[in-house]
Amino acid sequence: MALDLHDLGRRARAAARVVAGAGTTVKDAALVAAAELVEARADELLVANRADVDRAVDAGASPAQLDRLTLTHLRVQAMAAGLRALCAQADPVGEVVGGWVRPNGLRVTQVRVPLGVIGVIYENRPNVTSDAAGLCLKAGNAIMLRGSSSALRSNQAVVGALRDALGKVGLPEDAVTLVEDTERSGALAFMQLDALDCLIPRGGHSLVASVRQHATVPTVIDGDGNCHVYVDARADPAMAVAIVANAKLQRPGVCNAAESLLVHRDVAATLLPQMAEALRGVELVGDARARAVVPTMGAATDEDYATEFLAPKLSVAVVDDLEAAVAHIARFGSGHSEAIVTEDLRAAERFVAEVDAAAVLVNASTRFVDGAELGLGAEIGISTQKLHARGPMGLRALTSVKYVVRGDGQVRT
Amino acid sequence: MALDLHDLGRRARAAARVVAGAGTTVKDAALVAAAELVEARADELLVANRADVDRAVDAGASPAQLDRLTLTHLRVQAMAAGLRALCAQADPVGEVVGGWVRPNGLRVTQVRVPLGVIGVIYENRPNVTSDAAGLCLKAGNAIMLRGSSSALRSNQAVVGALRDALGKVGLPEDAVTLVEDTERSGALAFMQLDALDCLIPRGGHSLVASVRQHATVPTVIDGDGNCHVYVDARADPAMAVAIVANAKLQRPGVCNAAESLLVHRDVAATLLPQMAEALRGVELVGDARARAVVPTMGAATDEDYATEFLAPKLSVAVVDDLEAAVAHIARFGSGHSEAIVTEDLRAAERFVAEVDAAAVLVNASTRFVDGAELGLGAEIGISTQKLHARGPMGLRALTSVKYVVRGDGQVRT
Repeated sequence: MALDLHDLGRRARAAARVVAGAGTTVKDAALVAAAELVEARADELLVANRADVDRAVDAGASPAQLDRLTLTHLRVQAMAAGLRALCAQADPVGEVVGGWVRPNGLRVTQVRVPLGVIGVIYENRPNVTSDAAGLCLKAGNAIMLRGSSSALRSNQAVVGALRDALGKVGLPEDAVTLVEDTERSGALAFMQLDALDCLIPRGGHSLVASVRQHATVPTVIDGDGNCHVYVDARADPAMAVAIVANAKLQRPGVCNAAESLLVHRDVAATLLPQMAEALRGVELVGDARARAVVPTMGAATDEDYATEFLAPKLSVAVVDDLEAAVAHIARFGSGHSEAIVTEDLRAAERFVAEVDAAAVLVNASTRFVDGAELGLGAEIGISTQKLHARGPMGLRALTSVKYVVRGDGQVRT
Repeated sequence: MALDLHDLGRRARAAARVVAGAGTTVKDAALVAAAELVEARADELLVANRADVDRAVDAGASPAQLDRLTLTHLRVQAMAAGLRALCAQADPVGEVVGGWVRPNGLRVTQVRVPLGVIGVIYENRPNVTSDAAGLCLKAGNAIMLRGSSSALRSNQAVVGALRDALGKVGLPEDAVTLVEDTERSGALAFMQLDALDCLIPRGGHSLVASVRQHATVPTVIDGDGNCHVYVDARADPAMAVAIVANAKLQRPGVCNAAESLLVHRDVAATLLPQMAEALRGVELVGDARARAVVPTMGAATDEDYATEFLAPKLSVAVVDDLEAAVAHIARFGSGHSEAIVTEDLRAAERFVAEVDAAAVLVNASTRFVDGAELGLGAEIGISTQKLHARGPMGLRALTSVKYVVRGDGQVRT
């Protein structure tokens, strides 16, 4: 590579200043141009991706890894559609968050501005490349992407299309930068690159742990989703079964799928058999009281209750009351999405108030906690930390604010 | 110490859950009780502080360090007044930030919630102890305070009063925790304490650098203020002189004081002599063009332009145009507060748009960039990072958000 990481960082910063000042029209034109180029180069992308996949097969990648890595015509179309869809979203830059006049006549406004340079460090999925770049661009930022070595050729092809699209509309190509070195030392240097105003990891446990450990730049953590559904004593039984089945089964491999079912003891005997029926094919592990009702269930350990299975497996516990459910969630939850099913207003309100998570749901499936379903549009991830952004991160999560203070000569006395 | 850091963290987390659910009335009662106890124990506080100051004198502390460390009756009164003043501020907890209904009937709200446990690591100033604890409490958080060893006795006395006040109103005393170990290894362990939802350093360069380097918990950085005033070609001369003098002289030792003056070349010859006159007693260092007008000025180095003097010293540069001023600020500024003096609308708007800083001011002194002056109330610091909070951090900066999603049985298809 001709340029070292710090050179790339400087170029990204310079590009970020230009993109920050670009109007919505030109940013949208870049997104459309990028979508067109991605489509026009679909065959090239697939050839590059095939080379990555072949190497991954040789290296013994798992079926899940291969699935995440593999591009298809459909997935390329989805990438292009995602870029186009961003044009329809409101540009967050310039939004006046608040404003007021001080007694001395100073007019204060707080205005939304781009973050600057956003770093994304991620694994496998080449579609993250275009999704993340599109979001960052629409919010007026430059992006530096550090994908995994296994996806290098695919990412080069995608980034090539994105950079060419920027050039076409007169924006600096360095607003989308692929960091191509694939050494572990390079990952650490990336996590400590001063040019980054924000670093977002997209990947598994060990990547997130490494970012927590080593990053010296501000980060937003897209963490685990060990999500619970609590079925209260006064739940509508049919609704409870439908929500639990949907939360667990509709797409078990994603972070907003349910991993744990808590059932009030008053309804355990009647509801758990129905749940087991609706969850046929799901491996259930439970505590003694759950197993007393559904004897086919295995025994759950604390480890099970703490685990995000991302698979057709569900931990089950019978709880004495809402307080016990909240305590269980406080102990084992990951602060992602937690649901209660109940017809009891007071129970619903206590659950909403007392459960500490990015999203708390009443009588709805945890699967709704993503950017599109909540109406935020495309998301760059779901933050499980409390600082800066919490929950699905749409365009606003990719911005900062600036105070603008206008006076006519005021000085402080 | 009987409890180790992780025990203290667990206790703070448990206390945080209680404080998060406390209403405004009880939190305000705790603040009033704390103010009363601080006043009632003023003599004790001053005796404890005297012991700290004596040791600092023996250890050869500088006058500035001693000034920051020393409590007086007036400063104790100011601590109490600060606690009381928080009662008048709106409680940010529960504020509905936004809300909407999805096509499927899901009702989504985004609600402000406390952060949880906030860590503050700081140097000397015992008044930070009560100021920070009061702000964190009002925003529904627990606080863990790690002050310097030099202020240990003072901090113990202040925290003792705060904890007793919490107990008086029935809130858990562990909502305000002083971390009393003073080893360097303890500082590192504190920066990596999982119990902390947010860590805020209050102190000099080396503390901030250490937090950047070692913290594994989310941080908000209260960084340097290398603030500029740019006097445009079309500035009102008298206003320009008044603003520069105020920004530099009104309180030179604080972060929102001006450290650098940029003057458009068209007005340098007429304005710089007036500036030098108004800034008598200030050491001026400038570039060749500035020194050609004011020959008594020393020569400025890049190091000077990059330095936050916090003293009666000012760097000066003559610039060709607004673009050059913006470029100079981009190169040397610290992203804190940057001002332009001009009567030219287009120059004002370009400066506001192009300067990347927490606060940008038009025709006003940089000294206005603090929480009270901008109307945000008391502040826990001024963030110079772009993530989470930027600029003066009032009560809202000490909160997070939570999505609350209410349905009537919706599942995802």
